[in-house]
Amino acid sequence: MATIDSTPQADGFRMPAEWEPHAGTWMLWPQRPDNWRDGAKPAQRAWVEVASAIARFEPVTMGVNPDQFENARAMLPDSVRVVEISNNDSWMRDIGPSFVVNDAGDVRLVHWHFNAWGGLFDGLYFPWDKDELVPRKIAEIEGIDRYRAPFVLEGGSFHVDGEGTVITTEECLLSPGRNPDLTREEIEAYLAEYLGISKVIWLKRGIDPEETNGHVDDVACFVRPGVVLAGWTEDEGDWRYEILAENLEILKNATDAKGRPLEVHTMPMPNTMTYTAEETSGVDVVEGTLPREAGDEVPASYVNFYVCNDAVVLPIFGDAHDAEAAAVLQRLFPGREVVTFPGREIVLGGGNVHCITQQQPRG
Amino acid sequence: MATIDSTPQADGFRMPAEWEPHAGTWMLWPQRPDNWRDGAKPAQRAWVEVASAIARFEPVTMGVNPDQFENARAMLPDSVRVVEISNNDSWMRDIGPSFVVNDAGDVRLVHWHFNAWGGLFDGLYFPWDKDELVPRKIAEIEGIDRYRAPFVLEGGSFHVDGEGTVITTEECLLSPGRNPDLTREEIEAYLAEYLGISKVIWLKRGIDPEETNGHVDDVACFVRPGVVLAGWTEDEGDWRYEILAENLEILKNATDAKGRPLEVHTMPMPNTMTYTAEETSGVDVVEGTLPREAGDEVPASYVNFYVCNDAVVLPIFGDAHDAEAAAVLQRLFPGREVVTFPGREIVLGGGNVHCITQQQPRG
Repeated sequence: MATIDSTPQADGFRMPAEWEPHAGTWMLWPQRPDNWRDGAKPAQRAWVEVASAIARFEPVTMGVNPDQFENARAMLPDSVRVVEISNNDSWMRDIGPSFVVNDAGDVRLVHWHFNAWGGLFDGLYFPWDKDELVPRKIAEIEGIDRYRAPFVLEGGSFHVDGEGTVITTEECLLSPGRNPDLTREEIEAYLAEYLGISKVIWLKRGIDPEETNGHVDDVACFVRPGVVLAGWTEDEGDWRYEILAENLEILKNATDAKGRPLEVHTMPMPNTMTYTAEETSGVDVVEGTLPREAGDEVPASYVNFYVCNDAVVLPIFGDAHDAEAAAVLQRLFPGREVVTFPGREIVLGGGNVHCITQQQPRG
Repeated sequence: MATIDSTPQADGFRMPAEWEPHAGTWMLWPQRPDNWRDGAKPAQRAWVEVASAIARFEPVTMGVNPDQFENARAMLPDSVRVVEISNNDSWMRDIGPSFVVNDAGDVRLVHWHFNAWGGLFDGLYFPWDKDELVPRKIAEIEGIDRYRAPFVLEGGSFHVDGEGTVITTEECLLSPGRNPDLTREEIEAYLAEYLGISKVIWLKRGIDPEETNGHVDDVACFVRPGVVLAGWTEDEGDWRYEILAENLEILKNATDAKGRPLEVHTMPMPNTMTYTAEETSGVDVVEGTLPREAGDEVPASYVNFYVCNDAVVLPIFGDAHDAEAAAVLQRLFPGREVVTFPGREIVLGGGNVHCITQQQPRG
């Protein structure tokens, strides 16, 4: 398949919003024992649960390393397609491509540079050479053409409304481990060219400075054009309060690409939670990867949900706010089924269901 | 994708003949330095030539090991799809699946057991664990269901006419390295069940006893129902004469599944040829793999051509019989373009264009 020497914007392509119709969902199978406890077996069971839930609504493809092909194929239901795609870890949102479409219904993909959330500056593992090829391999499997974007970007660091607007965070996109030679204006220009957008709304920070450097997909997202959902807590003593308040203020005063002021809804945060000694004891120690230590913060968020065809998939944590989070989504996505599942095992690795999925639009 | 606990015959499926319409062609990228000289670079250039030729007529997918993905993608034209499929060597005909169809147009595949042409008895390399998964991975990529056949069989060891008949050789299918616990009658029954055929025509021997144990695809094939093409030489001093004469006699006296006597055409053999010292010097020595030594016979045959949509792809050798071989095919396949290419580099590894391709029927 071809690599197109142009940009989506120049060719009339745009990235659709997550709620637009999907052809399917892409995921990557977890296995690295320095991030997933107990040889990744608990995580793999969680992946099976998420993939099975999404497969009720749309096709799911699971990329796996060669040595996990048989095991993944055996653990997953027949309805999930399992394909060999070598990878260094399992965060398809960040490692995978972003798909773009045009008005004629053609689908292409954007292959970002990926450097494990900060490269040699503050990246989470080394090397990330297999991850770097994942989008190209997806393009080949699907038989679609590819744009190669000339900068570092992860899918979880931005959300689009499908109508010209993107939300992101300064903490991540301006981090010294991503694109230190690009100015804010140059990054805005690249986002416009490769996502087909015309307006960037810059939030300040996310809630996991040491992992993704503050991906927006834990703190805010669009739910439809002109309408956003922001993580929120009333507790001024919560360390996340200042971060979320700052973002909320920005959103309330922002307008989108079409000049609309945003309608802002809030999503409760789960209570702060930390790793237990049992949870960290099964994680391999490897120099150069982020150590998991008992008492460390677990970056849990209900905002890290995933919108698939006819459903919204929401991680819950056995937390006092679980029911309210589900109710918020049911109110904001009235035509969709809200599917909940236990999200703790996934967030122990650093993210949640939004981080481990990537939608392919129907086109 | 599902593994079906039944057989193609029981479900009304049959393997179509090679000349029936294809959805595309599958290949595997060569790389192992103990079979392909000079780090497989000359072989890879030959693969590019074959894949490019076939891609003029139908979609081609190239399976590659992870460490050759970038190189293969760079060497092959955009028109060839490149997907990660780990493998031990590049003989898709033998390692890959056989596809079956039913009258409704559904396509499934048969996943044979593969043991590197003889397993621990006289197989050509060890291990073959990656090869064993290739058909299942193809089923997943294509999203089709799979039959798992309970015996060892390679695609190059048989030819079907699509109307109930299969040709094979005793030397291969009754070899002690394949299915030593199965009788000839049990093997016939399995061929019937998994290829959807009702008649087996048993030839005696092929021309490469030490490599594939006499695959039929170097000595005879169907060109349409009721019509076969047999390798032939008039030279009684040629070591292949007795082998080919024996097979020819069998074919001339055989009837097919529909009771038709076979119309038998002959294809000249290229003159016998041997490895040069230059050709063998670039092959790595590895204990347990077949050594390549200067003066060894190279099993070249024009019968090892490949029929794709609207074309026939024929290896030539700079031999006195090249033109006649092409003329035979043009006469037998009047509606198709005969595409020739230099076949020596491929046959240095032990086979030719038929051995390195596998057709997926359109269904």
